[in-house]
Amino acid sequence: MDPEVTVMTKYYLGVDLAGTNIKAGLFADSFQTVKKVHRPTHEEQGADAVLNRIWSSCEDLMADAGVTSDDIAAAGFGIPGQMDIQKGISIFSPNFTDWQNVPVVQWFQNKLGKPVFIDNDVRVHLYGETTFGAGKGHQNVVLVAIGTGLGAAVMIDGHVLYGASNSVGEIGHMNMYRHGRPCACGSSGCLGRYVSARGIVKTMHDKLSEGQTSIVSQWVVQGEEMTTKLISKAVAQGDETATEVFKETGELLGFGLSNVINLYNPEELILGGGVSAAGEALFKDTRETIAHHSLQVAQNACKVSMAQLGDEAGMIGAAVYASRKLNRSM
Amino acid sequence: MDPEVTVMTKYYLGVDLAGTNIKAGLFADSFQTVKKVHRPTHEEQGADAVLNRIWSSCEDLMADAGVTSDDIAAAGFGIPGQMDIQKGISIFSPNFTDWQNVPVVQWFQNKLGKPVFIDNDVRVHLYGETTFGAGKGHQNVVLVAIGTGLGAAVMIDGHVLYGASNSVGEIGHMNMYRHGRPCACGSSGCLGRYVSARGIVKTMHDKLSEGQTSIVSQWVVQGEEMTTKLISKAVAQGDETATEVFKETGELLGFGLSNVINLYNPEELILGGGVSAAGEALFKDTRETIAHHSLQVAQNACKVSMAQLGDEAGMIGAAVYASRKLNRSM
Repeated sequence: MDPEVTVMTKYYLGVDLAGTNIKAGLFADSFQTVKKVHRPTHEEQGADAVLNRIWSSCEDLMADAGVTSDDIAAAGFGIPGQMDIQKGISIFSPNFTDWQNVPVVQWFQNKLGKPVFIDNDVRVHLYGETTFGAGKGHQNVVLVAIGTGLGAAVMIDGHVLYGASNSVGEIGHMNMYRHGRPCACGSSGCLGRYVSARGIVKTMHDKLSEGQTSIVSQWVVQGEEMTTKLISKAVAQGDETATEVFKETGELLGFGLSNVINLYNPEELILGGGVSAAGEALFKDTRETIAHHSLQVAQNACKVSMAQLGDEAGMIGAAVYASRKLNRSM
Repeated sequence: MDPEVTVMTKYYLGVDLAGTNIKAGLFADSFQTVKKVHRPTHEEQGADAVLNRIWSSCEDLMADAGVTSDDIAAAGFGIPGQMDIQKGISIFSPNFTDWQNVPVVQWFQNKLGKPVFIDNDVRVHLYGETTFGAGKGHQNVVLVAIGTGLGAAVMIDGHVLYGASNSVGEIGHMNMYRHGRPCACGSSGCLGRYVSARGIVKTMHDKLSEGQTSIVSQWVVQGEEMTTKLISKAVAQGDETATEVFKETGELLGFGLSNVINLYNPEELILGGGVSAAGEALFKDTRETIAHHSLQVAQNACKVSMAQLGDEAGMIGAAVYASRKLNRSM
């Protein structure tokens, strides 16, 4: 190893790219946060605009910290959707307009002049949580991200899993009903169609159109947007329909996670993503269902916990990932 | 490494223990079969009798081949049910009477005087198929064993997975119906309650008791036992009810395997176990369901194939496993 390299390359850039926000951080070599920034993605402006916005965020981070790209060891990106990790291409990303076969790695390596690595957004969160958060020190961890959609990332026997097409952990498409809600994947009855921000809102809409009533209807008339957060607020106020929505969602998640526990056998099952803010109002039925429906031996070995790093998991995880890739490739 | 050890220890013993038969083989150091033997297990005689029968099978193998335990490097066992692999204890095995916390490893090491390793029966089959059979050369392989029950073993990114309590791959307990057939695990609607020898026979019985007719009823009256094989024979003769049973079973397996493909992302999904002898009569609906319900990217990466090693997969796999454990522990 060239001693000059170890002295010079002390920082990592970690980028968490999502449909709404770009979160980017500059991390020292033990992943202390030096600087971080959140910017709106403006995905509707297309790939070039988004890439330029990420790069200017990174430039600002470096300028604020008084470092240059010479001080950066590598950059890591967490990106939603399908990708070719080896070639560094983001093939397709849901919720992104004009985003097909985007050569993220090549584009950024040209700007930064240092190694750049991309991975799935949930997997990058897992790197974060297993290094500094809820899964720290564990070898068997599943991170379940409940947001707009539903996804998971999986570490078993100490290995973060990728699979034949880097798509291990697609629990959002777990078939729960043979003829359930149609899914964009071409199937129907997929878990993510029920357990996700979109799914929860759809369940509420279904109940309202079947004639049930809820306080959320009034709030919506008053101009509020129908969201999981709004339904959660209604649950807190004792609204019956909203409580039913949470109960059904929590239970179905419990059945889905029983399958996750039976198939992956994690010691730590971490619940994360925006919807997880609903907390025990949603998850108490999940826990109860797991207790009754997952295998005893696997259940006894498994703790269900909440993600700890919050908003920062993605960018820290992306930095951790970049450092691991770099050291393996050295 | 002691050169004397490499010269002396040229053989492996591989044992595949099942409720019906003990299959044991003596293998040379590249796993060529030197001798093999099948004996009835007589599990009803209890653990001591079974252990002694396995040991006498091994003694016979060695005597027939003109070798002694000095020539054995190690022995591997595939055992159904729950176990403590590290402590070498078979905790509980379905279909075995008087079988609790059986110290298999210690018992055999005392007899053989060489290292002994145990693992799950399906996982040991996977070691066999990935080394010499359908999964050869692949890094992402799921072996699905459809027998009396339903189980799976999983290799991802080149690692055979174990998990927090060595129970990765319990697809037989994948919840497919919220309120389906009750299962011994305490849950209900588990996949293995439908897709397994027992499940298929139950589906046929259900249809008959609902008033449907089938040629198998006549055969049973004539003294034949109601088995998957008998139902398969009826399907081959165009029996409508039997065909319906296979169609329903094949489809449900297809939904279950769509989940397996979406969660594990294998490049090779191997169908094995006794029921897989039913072949395409059962699996054509499975393949069709997978084509319509698993994620396109994962499906494109995955080939569904049949196990190739048949009866020998378990004992060869157990020998391969023993050799890997030995070499890792050296």
